[in-house]
Amino acid sequence: MAVGSGQLPTLHPVAGFKIGIASAGIKKPGRLDLVIMQVAEGSAVAAVFTKNAFCAAPVQLAKQHLRAQTPLFLVTNTGNANAGTGAAGLANAQLTCEKLAHLANASVQSILPFSTGVIGEPLPVEKITNALPAGLADLREDNWLQAAHGIMTTDTRPKATSVQIDLDGKRVTITGISKGAGMIKPNMATMLGYVATDAAVQQDVLQQIIERAVNRSFNRITIDGDTSTNDSCVLVATGHARNATIDSVSHPLFEKFYSAVEKVFVELAQAIIRDGEGATKFVTINVQDGANEKENLLVAYAVAESPLVKTALFASDPNWGRILAAVGRAGVENLDVNLISVHINNVLIAEHGGRAPTYTEQQGADALAAEEITISINLSRGDVDTTVWTTDFSHDYVTINAEYRT
Amino acid sequence: MAVGSGQLPTLHPVAGFKIGIASAGIKKPGRLDLVIMQVAEGSAVAAVFTKNAFCAAPVQLAKQHLRAQTPLFLVTNTGNANAGTGAAGLANAQLTCEKLAHLANASVQSILPFSTGVIGEPLPVEKITNALPAGLADLREDNWLQAAHGIMTTDTRPKATSVQIDLDGKRVTITGISKGAGMIKPNMATMLGYVATDAAVQQDVLQQIIERAVNRSFNRITIDGDTSTNDSCVLVATGHARNATIDSVSHPLFEKFYSAVEKVFVELAQAIIRDGEGATKFVTINVQDGANEKENLLVAYAVAESPLVKTALFASDPNWGRILAAVGRAGVENLDVNLISVHINNVLIAEHGGRAPTYTEQQGADALAAEEITISINLSRGDVDTTVWTTDFSHDYVTINAEYRT
Repeated sequence: MAVGSGQLPTLHPVAGFKIGIASAGIKKPGRLDLVIMQVAEGSAVAAVFTKNAFCAAPVQLAKQHLRAQTPLFLVTNTGNANAGTGAAGLANAQLTCEKLAHLANASVQSILPFSTGVIGEPLPVEKITNALPAGLADLREDNWLQAAHGIMTTDTRPKATSVQIDLDGKRVTITGISKGAGMIKPNMATMLGYVATDAAVQQDVLQQIIERAVNRSFNRITIDGDTSTNDSCVLVATGHARNATIDSVSHPLFEKFYSAVEKVFVELAQAIIRDGEGATKFVTINVQDGANEKENLLVAYAVAESPLVKTALFASDPNWGRILAAVGRAGVENLDVNLISVHINNVLIAEHGGRAPTYTEQQGADALAAEEITISINLSRGDVDTTVWTTDFSHDYVTINAEYRT
Repeated sequence: MAVGSGQLPTLHPVAGFKIGIASAGIKKPGRLDLVIMQVAEGSAVAAVFTKNAFCAAPVQLAKQHLRAQTPLFLVTNTGNANAGTGAAGLANAQLTCEKLAHLANASVQSILPFSTGVIGEPLPVEKITNALPAGLADLREDNWLQAAHGIMTTDTRPKATSVQIDLDGKRVTITGISKGAGMIKPNMATMLGYVATDAAVQQDVLQQIIERAVNRSFNRITIDGDTSTNDSCVLVATGHARNATIDSVSHPLFEKFYSAVEKVFVELAQAIIRDGEGATKFVTINVQDGANEKENLLVAYAVAESPLVKTALFASDPNWGRILAAVGRAGVENLDVNLISVHINNVLIAEHGGRAPTYTEQQGADALAAEEITISINLSRGDVDTTVWTTDFSHDYVTINAEYRT
């Protein structure tokens, strides 16, 4: 199950960023499960990683390598997360990098490894290293769609988007892919997200851009509240578009470029929710007029992760009492419930601590019949608005997660 | 579905505490849905209530009345929570108290109202007040079992326990009942819990006892992480056993009495978990050797409320990777994952950041085959142990909550 058509736009190649896909046969023979990305020399590369203390071996190694030098290759396998694998897992991630470094005539530290799939199984490293030559042979700039397929696990469809903007008289492209369908409450990034642009951006500015954009996209989605061990997100800027280099956040090109990047990140993050495990609804939770972002997020996530709210959404049941109960337990200090109003889409359902006098069950049922729903919660205690995106909880969610070994 | 036999022990009457049950026909004609409890003059009464900001009208009123004087009557209806009902809800709770006060020739403030059931529907107050005379006529000391039935909503069975101890040469009885099966992560108390004893205990000591006992029982259970709007728990001490009054926490009788009370509270709290909506497993999460209770609770609840862990438990799948992932995202500062070990029952499943070398899938499957499971997580960073209790997430959980309007 998934929400929306899932139709992808044209994925524009990014000059200076090549992708090769191969089949290593990690879980199933013949499945595309290995993706190599080559970053042109002179690019800036920024990344963010999971904050889960049990972060996977490739995450640990990628963070080390990123501190040492600008990466030239990103190598991703699916089918095995190489997480909860201890010292042997680190050695296997290291070996993958060494083999690729040797084949590509690059330094080991110029390679960032990524893994996604089952946790706690030994990485079949030989299958991966055997497939590296095929991946390298496939490197080309117009391989984004295949890469979106190549990083899928329980995803039912590829997730990708692409925009082009005019920057300083140059046409700049931003293209990205993402994957993830369960264990989704990113705390840094999604399971995996890769975005590349040919814009020229200075390294430290690119890092600020990815952090800000992730904070408004991948860090604002939740399917089940479970932050993964492998979340990683990378933003590459090759500079091949030859715009005036964006070298500070006050650069005249910054805002336009940042807006386009954020749009790509938000689309990729939303695509993960639309394809959430067992999802039948795409739900936007919009907390308005809060005192600050922190309390807005407490409220938004209390509602978004409430199993009772999520099962009511699955049933298309306008059970506003469960929404109020979730808001009430969110942990906001001195919350005056009499000031709060709740809308589903444009329908006012609750205010002054109870059901709105104008509200009818039919209105609620009509609003919830749609696949895409917005729940707006106005706290009336400030001027900060915050949005998160989530899904419902269906029988399929239980079936998928009682059967699939993450 | 429910875990265990649910067989109840003999419920000893408590001298000075009478119970009357009636049928008000709130949701279904003929169902026992109204319970009146009469507290003998001279008793001490302590109570704790939900911390949900959207607390129900009866909770607001009960707190007010409790501050004003020692209660003489507790009146509970099921079938309607009188929550999210605004000013009209408060007026209805007030009216219930006024009618009972008139019939019983007591002051309005001597009555504590309690409601449980659907949120957001107007309280059918006339049905309740019409049934009050029948409830009063039924008052007697040996009505505990009927009361346990009378406070049920989606509960599949009554929850009650009773112990007797010798205190100061007197036989002291402690008997209690509870209810709750969904919207269960009490933050003060369960949906509803009533415990009475004939011990003589001073009011302020009784309040300390209920707070400590609730903190180790009802506040340590979670089914779905959803704290209710109506959680309330009351402990009554009639003093009819005529023991030397326990007037401080250093009184020689305190520890023995407190232990017996805590035992009753823990049994009532566990009974709620065993009857959790859709529950097929009773799971004890035991966090050991943490630095403090706060971080232990972060870890325990991250595991207990992880939908991925809960669906794996439903599938009897020893998916230890999901347990590690939940521990890792719990938010404990400077967590060294290499020091952590995880057992299921007596089976060591993970240590040093990965699967234990001695562990086999067969061991894990055997451990999870039982209805009652203990997951022990040793953090090796202190000497504090903390236990919480929870259930799995089953198809029935989704079915029940997609169909029932709380």
